[in-house]
Amino acid sequence: MRREGPARGFEAAEFKVRTEKAQKLMAAQGLEGLLLWSEPDVRYFSGFHTLFWQSPTRPWFLFVPASGKPVAVIPEIGAALMRQTWIEDIRTWSAPAPQDDGISVLTELLAPLAQRGARLGVLKGHETSLRMPLGDWERLVQALPGLQLADATSLVQGLRMVKSVAEIEKLAHICAIGSATFDQVPSQVSQGMPLEEVFRAFRREALAQGADDVPYLVGGAGPGGYIDVISPPSRRPLKQGDVLMLDTGATWDGYFCDFDRNFAIGAADDAARRAYDVLWRATEAGIAAAQPGNNCRDLFQAMQRVIAELDDQGGDIGRLGHGLGMQLTEQPSHADFDTTPLQEGMVLTLEPSLGYGDNLIMVHEENIVIRAQGAELLTRRAVPELPVI
Amino acid sequence: MRREGPARGFEAAEFKVRTEKAQKLMAAQGLEGLLLWSEPDVRYFSGFHTLFWQSPTRPWFLFVPASGKPVAVIPEIGAALMRQTWIEDIRTWSAPAPQDDGISVLTELLAPLAQRGARLGVLKGHETSLRMPLGDWERLVQALPGLQLADATSLVQGLRMVKSVAEIEKLAHICAIGSATFDQVPSQVSQGMPLEEVFRAFRREALAQGADDVPYLVGGAGPGGYIDVISPPSRRPLKQGDVLMLDTGATWDGYFCDFDRNFAIGAADDAARRAYDVLWRATEAGIAAAQPGNNCRDLFQAMQRVIAELDDQGGDIGRLGHGLGMQLTEQPSHADFDTTPLQEGMVLTLEPSLGYGDNLIMVHEENIVIRAQGAELLTRRAVPELPVI
Repeated sequence: MRREGPARGFEAAEFKVRTEKAQKLMAAQGLEGLLLWSEPDVRYFSGFHTLFWQSPTRPWFLFVPASGKPVAVIPEIGAALMRQTWIEDIRTWSAPAPQDDGISVLTELLAPLAQRGARLGVLKGHETSLRMPLGDWERLVQALPGLQLADATSLVQGLRMVKSVAEIEKLAHICAIGSATFDQVPSQVSQGMPLEEVFRAFRREALAQGADDVPYLVGGAGPGGYIDVISPPSRRPLKQGDVLMLDTGATWDGYFCDFDRNFAIGAADDAARRAYDVLWRATEAGIAAAQPGNNCRDLFQAMQRVIAELDDQGGDIGRLGHGLGMQLTEQPSHADFDTTPLQEGMVLTLEPSLGYGDNLIMVHEENIVIRAQGAELLTRRAVPELPVI
Repeated sequence: MRREGPARGFEAAEFKVRTEKAQKLMAAQGLEGLLLWSEPDVRYFSGFHTLFWQSPTRPWFLFVPASGKPVAVIPEIGAALMRQTWIEDIRTWSAPAPQDDGISVLTELLAPLAQRGARLGVLKGHETSLRMPLGDWERLVQALPGLQLADATSLVQGLRMVKSVAEIEKLAHICAIGSATFDQVPSQVSQGMPLEEVFRAFRREALAQGADDVPYLVGGAGPGGYIDVISPPSRRPLKQGDVLMLDTGATWDGYFCDFDRNFAIGAADDAARRAYDVLWRATEAGIAAAQPGNNCRDLFQAMQRVIAELDDQGGDIGRLGHGLGMQLTEQPSHADFDTTPLQEGMVLTLEPSLGYGDNLIMVHEENIVIRAQGAELLTRRAVPELPVI
């Protein structure tokens, strides 16, 4: 049952290429360094991969200089693991240390930049957050007068959007595991089963199929459809006439799939079948539009035109898909506001949604990679008609 | 095999009590509101519970006023779920919206406070982060001249540290599930099994035992011991003489256990047995010291005195345990710097660690709740001698 995956981790050459690409862009933008603090950004340039980020206690930093390898500024507990990456300059402190949680180590590292009034890139734009205490950030800025801060969000997000061959292999692997897991749902789910047991069975099956973890699993079930797409499971048993939706972000070697499937329990009514049909065809339109030369807005509009047959709001989940990689959702967004050009190597979700009936919502999702000729599916395409279990 | 858990969720009265306690402290500190943006803080006062926070795309906010119920300022996609909580005033926007991701809705809500120069509490201290773009935060502050910002970290952390009866029930339930899962390790793990398969089997067993999820699982294995305690698994097969450690944060209804167990594969050498014995006795000393009247430093020192028999650095993981609840690690810290008094209802980990041999590290961990008479174990106590599989 278990499929063999590609190799874990990446060659050092991969990190070198990523770093040099960033440094080229930094030079063009007059940045003499880049300070990163989020799990995926630190991992992208270092290969440092641990679930320990789930503890909010300790901040972690990676500094990308104008040339040469990045410098890690991290709690001592991470030093052994960081030494296994391509990073050589690893500066640590004994954390947690509420009075000085890495701030003086960072200050020493950045002081030369501050002294010459250099520009430091940090990520403060859309889809970012400050993964350190705001008070510590304020203290750091105060300790470095002269340092100019610049927003490097689009620099880093722009690099991360286009996946390497090795990244696409990992993403294809976890999407295949997700597809195989969904294939087992009809044999594992039946009327009377509480939704929380449906979720548990799905998680166990994904692991059996080879996933490392299933950090994201949401869904819903209700008569004729569901009213919400981000809920944890209730104990309500599945009933005849329910529509069940499961949406999963499973991971392999730190890369996510993110897609969903719908199932009718016992029987499907016309409204649910119609909604499913519209979303299936909206996805087809998305697949056709997902090629170099188009942008995210084109993709959005191609799907929206089909969705409008039933609903001109699209269920208001705000967009109809997004980038996919080390995070469940990444840049870009398939939305009217996003004119990011589609490029070869982008891995994306197509995620049309619509409202129907009495406050019901339906979603549909596939994962693709953009090739020179157009979209290549990483997920096994959903069947064209709402399947009945 | 599956154990019946307590009820999911909380009564509305629980959120009312939490909110009124916060408001009493806010009044004492001259705060006219509290703005929250992290998953556990928003959930603590609202009951809003979803894995959707894993998507970094959208910010979520909860405002706690001086009196009355909190106000949610959230993306439209979360409205249906938020309406199932006790919150009534739910203000939404169609997110993502990079140009204005909730900032104008927040500005309108907070403008009256700003106009009268009121003080707003935000969390900017130790163990917090800013879960919104830094650039948006800067824009919000600029849009509200006159608003005074105050650090409310200890106010909120102080409340969350002491668990309610219903919270302790959930924590006891997931700790029992974790204990039952570890009991199965000897029958599921054997020489030759790759570490990634050990992890996968553990995750599947925890789900079978009733966990909702196993978001955190780290560990290591190596001849005579392991060198790191935060790694993901390798494909290296377990060998005779290895010491294997698994450290898990499994969840039930949004509450974590966090503990580990050590196993020798085939045989244990004297150094590993000695390290295990010291840590086991350090934990006993921690259990004895974990009572009202003592503080976190006392607890730290009680464990450290035993650890010093072998190692006076304690492996430098920075502390010897911490709070436990909606997060894998919470306040307080069992460290020399933390003089938080131990109180009835606190749920804590005791986590002594030490370095030994050639760069090896060993950890040991139990979860307890502080009662009037002292510590009550929530985990089934580890056996006093390193078990051999």
